[in-house]
Amino acid sequence: MNQSTFGTRFTVSTWGESHGPALGVVIDGCPAGLDLCEGDIQAYLDRRKPGQSRFTTARKEEDRAEILSGVFEGKTTGTPISILIRNKDHRSADYGNLAAAYRPGHADFTFDRKFGLRDYRGGGRSSARETAARVAAGAVAAKLLSQIGVQLQAYTKAIGPVWVKNPDPAQITLNPLYMPDAEAAARAQSFLDECIAAGDSSGGVIECRITGMPTGLGEPVFGKLDACLAQAMMSIGAVKAVEIGDGIAVAGMKGSEDNDAFFAIQEPEQPDSPDQEPLIVKTSNHAGGIMGGISDGSDIILRAYIKPTPSISIPQQTATREGKNIELQIKGRHDPVIVPRAVVVVEAMAALVLADALLMNMTSRMDYIRQIYG
Amino acid sequence: MNQSTFGTRFTVSTWGESHGPALGVVIDGCPAGLDLCEGDIQAYLDRRKPGQSRFTTARKEEDRAEILSGVFEGKTTGTPISILIRNKDHRSADYGNLAAAYRPGHADFTFDRKFGLRDYRGGGRSSARETAARVAAGAVAAKLLSQIGVQLQAYTKAIGPVWVKNPDPAQITLNPLYMPDAEAAARAQSFLDECIAAGDSSGGVIECRITGMPTGLGEPVFGKLDACLAQAMMSIGAVKAVEIGDGIAVAGMKGSEDNDAFFAIQEPEQPDSPDQEPLIVKTSNHAGGIMGGISDGSDIILRAYIKPTPSISIPQQTATREGKNIELQIKGRHDPVIVPRAVVVVEAMAALVLADALLMNMTSRMDYIRQIYG
Amino acid sequence: MNQSTFGTRFTVSTWGESHGPALGVVIDGCPAGLDLCEGDIQAYLDRRKPGQSRFTTARKEEDRAEILSGVFEGKTTGTPISILIRNKDHRSADYGNLAAAYRPGHADFTFDRKFGLRDYRGGGRSSARETAARVAAGAVAAKLLSQIGVQLQAYTKAIGPVWVKNPDPAQITLNPLYMPDAEAAARAQSFLDECIAAGDSSGGVIECRITGMPTGLGEPVFGKLDACLAQAMMSIGAVKAVEIGDGIAVAGMKGSEDNDAFFAIQEPEQPDSPDQEPLIVKTSNHAGGIMGGISDGSDIILRAYIKPTPSISIPQQTATREGKNIELQIKGRHDPVIVPRAVVVVEAMAALVLADALLMNMTSRMDYIRQIYG
Amino acid sequence: MNQSTFGTRFTVSTWGESHGPALGVVIDGCPAGLDLCEGDIQAYLDRRKPGQSRFTTARKEEDRAEILSGVFEGKTTGTPISILIRNKDHRSADYGNLAAAYRPGHADFTFDRKFGLRDYRGGGRSSARETAARVAAGAVAAKLLSQIGVQLQAYTKAIGPVWVKNPDPAQITLNPLYMPDAEAAARAQSFLDECIAAGDSSGGVIECRITGMPTGLGEPVFGKLDACLAQAMMSIGAVKAVEIGDGIAVAGMKGSEDNDAFFAIQEPEQPDSPDQEPLIVKTSNHAGGIMGGISDGSDIILRAYIKPTPSISIPQQTATREGKNIELQIKGRHDPVIVPRAVVVVEAMAALVLADALLMNMTSRMDYIRQIYG
Repeated sequence: MNQSTFGTRFTVSTWGESHGPALGVVIDGCPAGLDLCEGDIQAYLDRRKPGQSRFTTARKEEDRAEILSGVFEGKTTGTPISILIRNKDHRSADYGNLAAAYRPGHADFTFDRKFGLRDYRGGGRSSARETAARVAAGAVAAKLLSQIGVQLQAYTKAIGPVWVKNPDPAQITLNPLYMPDAEAAARAQSFLDECIAAGDSSGGVIECRITGMPTGLGEPVFGKLDACLAQAMMSIGAVKAVEIGDGIAVAGMKGSEDNDAFFAIQEPEQPDSPDQEPLIVKTSNHAGGIMGGISDGSDIILRAYIKPTPSISIPQQTATREGKNIELQIKGRHDPVIVPRAVVVVEAMAALVLADALLMNMTSRMDYIRQIYG
Repeated sequence: MNQSTFGTRFTVSTWGESHGPALGVVIDGCPAGLDLCEGDIQAYLDRRKPGQSRFTTARKEEDRAEILSGVFEGKTTGTPISILIRNKDHRSADYGNLAAAYRPGHADFTFDRKFGLRDYRGGGRSSARETAARVAAGAVAAKLLSQIGVQLQAYTKAIGPVWVKNPDPAQITLNPLYMPDAEAAARAQSFLDECIAAGDSSGGVIECRITGMPTGLGEPVFGKLDACLAQAMMSIGAVKAVEIGDGIAVAGMKGSEDNDAFFAIQEPEQPDSPDQEPLIVKTSNHAGGIMGGISDGSDIILRAYIKPTPSISIPQQTATREGKNIELQIKGRHDPVIVPRAVVVVEAMAALVLADALLMNMTSRMDYIRQIYG
Repeated sequence: MNQSTFGTRFTVSTWGESHGPALGVVIDGCPAGLDLCEGDIQAYLDRRKPGQSRFTTARKEEDRAEILSGVFEGKTTGTPISILIRNKDHRSADYGNLAAAYRPGHADFTFDRKFGLRDYRGGGRSSARETAARVAAGAVAAKLLSQIGVQLQAYTKAIGPVWVKNPDPAQITLNPLYMPDAEAAARAQSFLDECIAAGDSSGGVIECRITGMPTGLGEPVFGKLDACLAQAMMSIGAVKAVEIGDGIAVAGMKGSEDNDAFFAIQEPEQPDSPDQEPLIVKTSNHAGGIMGGISDGSDIILRAYIKPTPSISIPQQTATREGKNIELQIKGRHDPVIVPRAVVVVEAMAALVLADALLMNMTSRMDYIRQIYG
Repeated sequence: MNQSTFGTRFTVSTWGESHGPALGVVIDGCPAGLDLCEGDIQAYLDRRKPGQSRFTTARKEEDRAEILSGVFEGKTTGTPISILIRNKDHRSADYGNLAAAYRPGHADFTFDRKFGLRDYRGGGRSSARETAARVAAGAVAAKLLSQIGVQLQAYTKAIGPVWVKNPDPAQITLNPLYMPDAEAAARAQSFLDECIAAGDSSGGVIECRITGMPTGLGEPVFGKLDACLAQAMMSIGAVKAVEIGDGIAVAGMKGSEDNDAFFAIQEPEQPDSPDQEPLIVKTSNHAGGIMGGISDGSDIILRAYIKPTPSISIPQQTATREGKNIELQIKGRHDPVIVPRAVVVVEAMAALVLADALLMNMTSRMDYIRQIYG
């Protein structure tokens, strides 16, 4: 699978640069007959739109989604869905002085070394603006998942030193940081104001919880559901660590602490019936909803650790393409923290993984085959 | 890509169950002309062989690798390399009583729900024994990488509460825990002895360092080198978290702390020559050798967090396939910690990712095309 | 997808050389719960076994299939099925004198130029012996297809100048050429005896008919069912042309001759019911059962054109690896015609394509999704 | 790989319906540093543009290619190239009466049965208009191939009963049928005029010749170069048969006739030097430039057999979606023959296959690896 395509059956191919005329995505493999309109996509895109608070870049982008194919009379047709987002506010002139300098913490140097040249305007393909296409695709995946009751919710778990202990979902959209805790959000905003004042930036953590999961999603060995989620999260530019369930904490746990016990809700009335699948749940969820790479029906819980915005105003030592050592001062306003706008990106990527796993799993059993073709 | 195949150009397809007659791997896409013999593979397999200390299962397996294709007169031919490992000590009788019970922390329940049936002998396909095939394949990848100077070294970073602060590579093979610190290894062994006595188990952390990296490996967007490494690591059964470079710590850092400065070793003699690529390094390595998903030439550093062995002697509450709630006591000896035997698995999986990235990158530039076909 | 893997959801990865210790295949993605035993595979392998008549090579191979994984208590488990076939009669010494000479009509020259070296024993990976692994995999695919009533039957349509006009399926297994016409088979045998006497060989044609097809298999655009069948057929070493339905004849036809009319068997009782899918058939089948790349429910008919065996006794002009021009005389007995043993290979490859299309199609509609997950 | 994506390393994902707002393609994996502009693409698109003679549909489409990403300052950047083509003249009203009727020879019926619904305007995704996106992508592939001297040329080999015996490339663009023979072209036009007068249509044959081929392209077993070409050709809607080299004729040939002899142009000066690769050619080319699925350096020759346009004015028996039997008369003007406009589609698809094979082959040998990374 090439660089810009993700998924095996629900595949998305994204394209576009920060300062090109447009960016977009082609979704191939979405089942026919799903109700879909541009509004479904716009609702997701609006959550990552810049310029909505003092903590995001001032770049003005409407991020208007245009569906160019694959939908007819309000329903998907089973053929590729092409979504286009025009770039409006791309003042390339601002970036001219960055053509030669390798910005610390950015992909300028590695793109140059890999490709021998690069589109230096706003980071080109390595710009976070690329994630708009992922979000558009994720909106379609989430719509598909909602049809069988799967719901995803991501939120800010931490910004710098400020962590949310007891997330209250009702709070998420009430503050510009998408933090499920009003008090923590207030402290985080103060902290970010300090960062801005110092010309610096902050990292943070995003958590995503997925409810309504059927059992059986995820493929053994390399296509494990958690492995695909890890790839999906780490493919978001600024993510440097990924956890599933108890995550890093398991390293310090004992088996007796980490194991989740199974519990049969009710013993079957006809214990000898081969067709009766008893309702079995776990009494805890250290595993984060995935065992052996396959969903166990519990909520899936994952966390992505986001590095601080590399574009800071503080002057930095760096080198140019030609090998000169210089001091670089990055001008213009930049997001002091990536986290709030990345919340919906995390949710979108998780949705892409799950939609793909949902389709993949449909061929796992002969009785499914017989159900469809019988 | 289906469940048991990994990679795009250097692809490996593994197969086999814990208690079947054999397991193995088919490697497709390995370049022709690489010196390769069974000894290259055996050296890796011997590192995960059971029964080497009191901290690993007593199962006796020679894990003898047999190359069945793809090598002729000591060199790879460019065609698929098939490697077979016979299972010797598979006493299925021991597992008969586990056919119906869902072991906590194992994939019994999810395999049953996904496939409608399962090979319950020793966990079948979900057994850690499956990783032997990965290690065999990883040995070939590592041999390929060594030809251009890339070296991988994994070791135990932590077991339970015992962490290694300053790894000393010379120590790794001097203790059965593969810990690069004699004193920490001693403490960890005491801790594990306590776990064994209590019928319990411990988690831990594995770190991998990759040196001699060329720049340019990794594909933008979804095929980022760190994204592929994250998938590779999380696809190892017991891994619940993955970090690259500073990992989770970046969430608490400021941009000014996390950014790695670039430094040009020497200014070019002929600054106007377009062909001259100056030597540029980073003065720190918070990024762990990967920027924008592409290798930057620094060492790659990653960590995988391993959960405690789920098979413990302490009686546990669970349910059976038929929906009965029971108390389960798992008999027989099991590894009290997964970490030491997983060290080489982490290294093997990292090697598979890098070998694939190495091949993928060969088509990134027109000048490479002209070099080969010119 | 790499060189030796075929399929997207029902994937097969073959490996092995003509004179290596063994060859085999890994099947990934076969649904769990399919009854499968080695006998199912052996029945297919026996159809391509050498040494069964004077028209096939005298090489003695039992071609005994061994299932090493993926089957438990007589049923597939949903995990990779590894099948191993040991090579018995591989007298490498016979081929020593061919190490340097490029046999006309063979892949010796191209393998050498592609890989820089080659396993010259019996053609190595380019030997027709490689197809044994395809046949083993095809047997599994055919077993899967039979569960929903799809049946495949290939036979010899022509050998040299002798064509079968009206195939009688009952005749196929009554002659060593698998020709569905006793009289044509007799003439073809006489023709082949002449070829043998002259130290020469003959080409021929294989036809395959697939019955019991559901509608809807095949994916639009690049994954068309006929496109996948064409790739599958042309991937068999000696095939130089592929036809679907009327094939090459369509070039000389008019639209009014080539179009197949649709006919509704009965008008619906409740014409306004959206759920009622009327039974519609075609009154002719010029299309060969595929329209727009998707199965239309009619029989699928395809033909593969097979070149004459390149190994002939007549002395031939050729060059050596070192650039010497020589006259080459190939010794030993070779099949005077490839067709009879390739009949089951054609059938196997068609089965692989259909099994994959069957699984792929299961995610084409939201109502299928709801049927499985509802 | 999903339905609308083609290729492994040079991958193209097409999208768009006949009467949607636009159609297009995303090319992923094109090496960085290739000179590319919209003019390169337009030159190809202009060759399939409708409305250029009385033998093509009167639909007016400018087919203007817009590059939206992946090109910077006139060079490819190594990131996805998105190309957009707006639909201008899509008078959907014309098709309203076809919403319910299944046109004979079209994909209306099979799309309905596969997806449960379809975009019936002009055939939606199954329209030949879809091939515009392939042609745009093929133009980029052809540009890449031209950098190493590979040239492709397709032309009309036959229309109905009129065949070209001795193609004269200079004639190809001098007649609207792209026939390399003025006299044959004149006869073919008379024949087509008769077809038009009768409300009928004609089939034909397209031949493609590829020169300047390096040896070594194509992967053994399933990824054979001819297998990929066969898939590519058969994926074009109207193609029903594909031949490589002597194609169907090989079935009637003897080994002594079909085998191509090798000839070393000059014996090496230093026969013992391992690095010296002598110049070896074939003295005939029955194989069509591919042996064992790998290019042998000779010209590649292939033919695609095209069915007659299914849309004819003659009334036809068919059924409706609701199961009514009706007589259908298709109105409006349609191409009386598909061949002339498909010539560039055949060339484009061949270019896509070769570009992919070119990139795939770069990892076949250790000495290539060392050349790039050494």
